[in-house]
Amino acid sequence: MKVFILGGGKGTRLWPLSRENFPKQFIRLFSEYSLFQETVRRALELTSQEEIFVITGKRYEWLIRSELEELGAENVNIVVEPIGRNTAPAIALGVKELLRLETPPNECILVLPSDHLIRDENAFKDAVERGKNIAKKGYIVLFGEKPAYPETGYGYIKLHKELEKGVYEVDRFEEKPDYDKAKEYVKDGLHLWNCGIFLFTLERIVKDYMEYMPEVNLNLKYEEFTRSFPDFPDISFDYAILEKTKKLAVVKMEAKWSDVGSWKAVYDNMEKNGNGNVVIGDVDAIETENSLLLSQGNNLIACVGLKDFIVVGTEDATLIMRKEESQRVRDIVKHLKEKGDERAVEHITSFTPFGSITKLENGERYRIRKLVIKKGKETPLQMHHHRTVHFIILRGTAKVRINGSERFYHENESFFIPKSIPYKIINVGRIPLEIIEVESGEYLGEDDVEILE
Amino acid sequence: MKVFILGGGKGTRLWPLSRENFPKQFIRLFSEYSLFQETVRRALELTSQEEIFVITGKRYEWLIRSELEELGAENVNIVVEPIGRNTAPAIALGVKELLRLETPPNECILVLPSDHLIRDENAFKDAVERGKNIAKKGYIVLFGEKPAYPETGYGYIKLHKELEKGVYEVDRFEEKPDYDKAKEYVKDGLHLWNCGIFLFTLERIVKDYMEYMPEVNLNLKYEEFTRSFPDFPDISFDYAILEKTKKLAVVKMEAKWSDVGSWKAVYDNMEKNGNGNVVIGDVDAIETENSLLLSQGNNLIACVGLKDFIVVGTEDATLIMRKEESQRVRDIVKHLKEKGDERAVEHITSFTPFGSITKLENGERYRIRKLVIKKGKETPLQMHHHRTVHFIILRGTAKVRINGSERFYHENESFFIPKSIPYKIINVGRIPLEIIEVESGEYLGEDDVEILE
Repeated sequence: MKVFILGGGKGTRLWPLSRENFPKQFIRLFSEYSLFQETVRRALELTSQEEIFVITGKRYEWLIRSELEELGAENVNIVVEPIGRNTAPAIALGVKELLRLETPPNECILVLPSDHLIRDENAFKDAVERGKNIAKKGYIVLFGEKPAYPETGYGYIKLHKELEKGVYEVDRFEEKPDYDKAKEYVKDGLHLWNCGIFLFTLERIVKDYMEYMPEVNLNLKYEEFTRSFPDFPDISFDYAILEKTKKLAVVKMEAKWSDVGSWKAVYDNMEKNGNGNVVIGDVDAIETENSLLLSQGNNLIACVGLKDFIVVGTEDATLIMRKEESQRVRDIVKHLKEKGDERAVEHITSFTPFGSITKLENGERYRIRKLVIKKGKETPLQMHHHRTVHFIILRGTAKVRINGSERFYHENESFFIPKSIPYKIINVGRIPLEIIEVESGEYLGEDDVEILE
Repeated sequence: MKVFILGGGKGTRLWPLSRENFPKQFIRLFSEYSLFQETVRRALELTSQEEIFVITGKRYEWLIRSELEELGAENVNIVVEPIGRNTAPAIALGVKELLRLETPPNECILVLPSDHLIRDENAFKDAVERGKNIAKKGYIVLFGEKPAYPETGYGYIKLHKELEKGVYEVDRFEEKPDYDKAKEYVKDGLHLWNCGIFLFTLERIVKDYMEYMPEVNLNLKYEEFTRSFPDFPDISFDYAILEKTKKLAVVKMEAKWSDVGSWKAVYDNMEKNGNGNVVIGDVDAIETENSLLLSQGNNLIACVGLKDFIVVGTEDATLIMRKEESQRVRDIVKHLKEKGDERAVEHITSFTPFGSITKLENGERYRIRKLVIKKGKETPLQMHHHRTVHFIILRGTAKVRINGSERFYHENESFFIPKSIPYKIINVGRIPLEIIEVESGEYLGEDDVEILE
C-alpha cells in the first residue's frame, strides 16, 4: 500500500501557535511530535518509508525534510507541488508520480491529511484494513468517525446500506449542519464525521480523474504534467471526484479522530487538571477554570479569574478569548494580514533549507539573529552591498568561504564579512552549528541578499 | 521651600509593567514622563532644582539620575539611604541633610511620594500655597483629596473644625474602610482621602522627631547619623509622627489625585475609547469592552470577547485578569518570588550606573546582551575567569582598556576579551554607545564578574 500525506494547510486557526509559514501540522501540542510527524508515524505502522509520499508546497519542503530527519524517516518521498493548489490537483500529482514509478494498477493508495489528531491508533489501523478489502473491489473508500458530540464545524456522511461489517455505501454528504441537526445526527446512528481520509486503488482513481476531471491529463509525460499543473482547477478532491464517482463506500471507525481545527477542539482533546484547565508551559493561574492556558518561549502567562477561556502566549503575541468564540481567531489573523503584520506569517524562529533563523533584535541600522546550521548543511553563497556582517560561533565548527578562500572557525571565534564580498558558511562538524549574526549597514532589506548559486 | 521626593516603593501592584527593580514610579503610562519625573516637574513649579531632595535607596539611584538627566534636572539633590527603611527614617535623613546645609529653621519642607498621579496641577499648587501659611504657624500639614467615589483601598482623614478657608484640624485617621462606610464618607463631606503628602517647617519637624522618635538622633554628626541609620525603627512617618503630634492640619484639595495603586485605578485614570477600553501599544481587540489593554515591546495582545478585563503584556510576561480582582496581582508576584522567577524582579532591560543592559538570549554556554553606555559613562574595570567575551559596536565610539593598554573602536568594529584579562569600556563619544556582548564559557554566573575598581 502507498500512502499520500497531504502536507499543505494554513496557519490561521491555531494562531499564534500556528503561522502562515508554520501551519497547524507542525505544531507540537499533543505529544513530543508534531501532527505531521504523528501522521508519518501512523503511516509507518501501515507501510514502509519508501511507500510514503508527502505532497506539499515549496514553502514547507525544508520544514518537512527536517521533521522527517528527526524521525529517522529520510526515505519518505517528498513530492513538491509546482504551485499551491487544492487537494484534487495535489492528489493527482501523487498519482502521476506513482504512474511514473510504474506502480501496479491494483496497488492501494491511502490519502491522509497531515494536521489531524487520531488518539486510538489501533482502531484506525483496523479501519484501514477493512477499507483495503473494499477498495480492492473498485470502491473509493472514505473514513467516518462516529460522532462523539454535536459538532457543527464538521462535514457529515449519511450512511446507506451496509456492504460489509462496518463498511457502508454512502447516501449523501452534509456540510456543517446547524446545532439541532448535528444533535439529531449524533443520536440517529446514521451519520458519521467525514475525516477527509481516502483509500482507493491506482486504477480506480486514474479512471475517475480521466472521467470527472479531464483537465488533469494523467497521460501527459511527467514534465509536461507538472508544467501544466498551475492550470489545473483549484478545487478540492471532494468536489472534483467524490461528489461524482459511482462506487463510494465509508468505513465506520471510533478512533478518537479530531481535525483540531480550533482552540476549543485543542482544549477538548487534551488532558485537564483538577480545575478543568489545560496548562502548558510557564503559567500561573489563580481562580481559573475550564480554560486552555498555554505559554511558549519567554512569555509567562499569569491570570486571575478566568472561566472558559483560551490564552495562548508566544514569544511575540498573546491571544486571549472566550472558548466559545474560538472561530474569531480568523478575524484577528485577517486584521494582522491587512496591516502587513509579520506576526501573522512567521514566528521569531523560521526554518530554512540549512536549519533555522531566530530574530533577536532589530535596530535602525543593525539586525541581530541567531542561525542554526544543521550537520552537513550550508548557507547559500551570498553577498550584500549595503551591510557588513559579524559572525560569532556559539557552538560547533564552521568552514567559511570568503571571497574564494576557505578557513575553519571554532566555538567562540568570530569572523567579519565586508560589503560586496561573497561568502558561505558550511557546517562541517558533527553537531548543529550555532552562530550569532550581527548585520550592520545603511540598508537591511531582504533584497540586498544576493544569492550567487 | 524645600521639597523631599520619596523615591522608594515596590514593584508589586502594577506587575508586569512594574518590577521589584523597576517600581511604579518609573512607569510611563499617563504621559511621556514617568510618575517620578512628573513629581519632579510638579516640584519644579514650586521651587528650584537645588531645593529639591530625592530620598531613595541605592538600588534606584542610577535610574533616578538617568530620569533627572532626561528632564535636564541634574541639579536636583539625591540623598541615598544607607539601607532601605520606611518613611520615618527616610524623611529624617532628608531633615538631617537640611540641618547639615544650615537651612533656616522656619524653612518649609514639602514631602511628596514619587508614584502618585495628580491630574489638576493648579489645584495642587493652590493647596500647597494654603498649606504653607498654616505650616508657618507650627502645624504639620496634610493634604486630603475630596473623595470622588467610595474607594476602600485608601486611608481617610476625618475633618474637625475649619482653621482657615479650606484648611481643617484633623479629627482622626481611618485606614481602608469597608464599602458601606466609604460610601458614607463620600456623602458626608467630612472625610478626605489621605494623599500621603506632608508639609512642615524644619524646626517643627526636628522638635517632633526629638520628642516622638528619639531613636533618630538628629543631633549626631552627619556621618554618625548615617552610620546609625540601619538601627532606626522600620516604621512609617504616619505611625511615628503624625499619630502623635499635637498640631495637625489638613488642606482640602480637588486635584484629581490618585495613588494608582492597582490596575483598576490605572484604568479609572486613563482616557477610554468608544468601547470603554483603554488601549496602549500593539493591540487587536474584538468585541471587547471596558477593559485595559496594554502591550509593551514585541508582545501583540489579541483578544476576543473580554468585558471588564485587565490585560498587560510585556516582553516576557502577560497578565490577564478581571478588573475587580486587580488586587490579586500581589499573589502572582508572591508566587513568582517563591519560585525564584526573575520576572518578578527585573524586566529584560535593566538599568545600571553606565546605562542599560538588555538580555537577548541565554544558552547553556553563552549569553547575549545588548549594552547601552551613556555619553561620558563607562563600565567598571572587570575580569572573568570562566568566560570570554566578544563585543560588536552597533553605534557610537568606544575607548576600550584591555590589560592596561587602550584603543578606540568604532561603529561596526569588534573586539575580544580573553579569560582573566581586565577590561573596561568607556563611551568617549557624543551619542549613546550601543554594543552587543556575546559571553561564552563553562560558567556564566554573576559571581564570575570580578570588579577591579
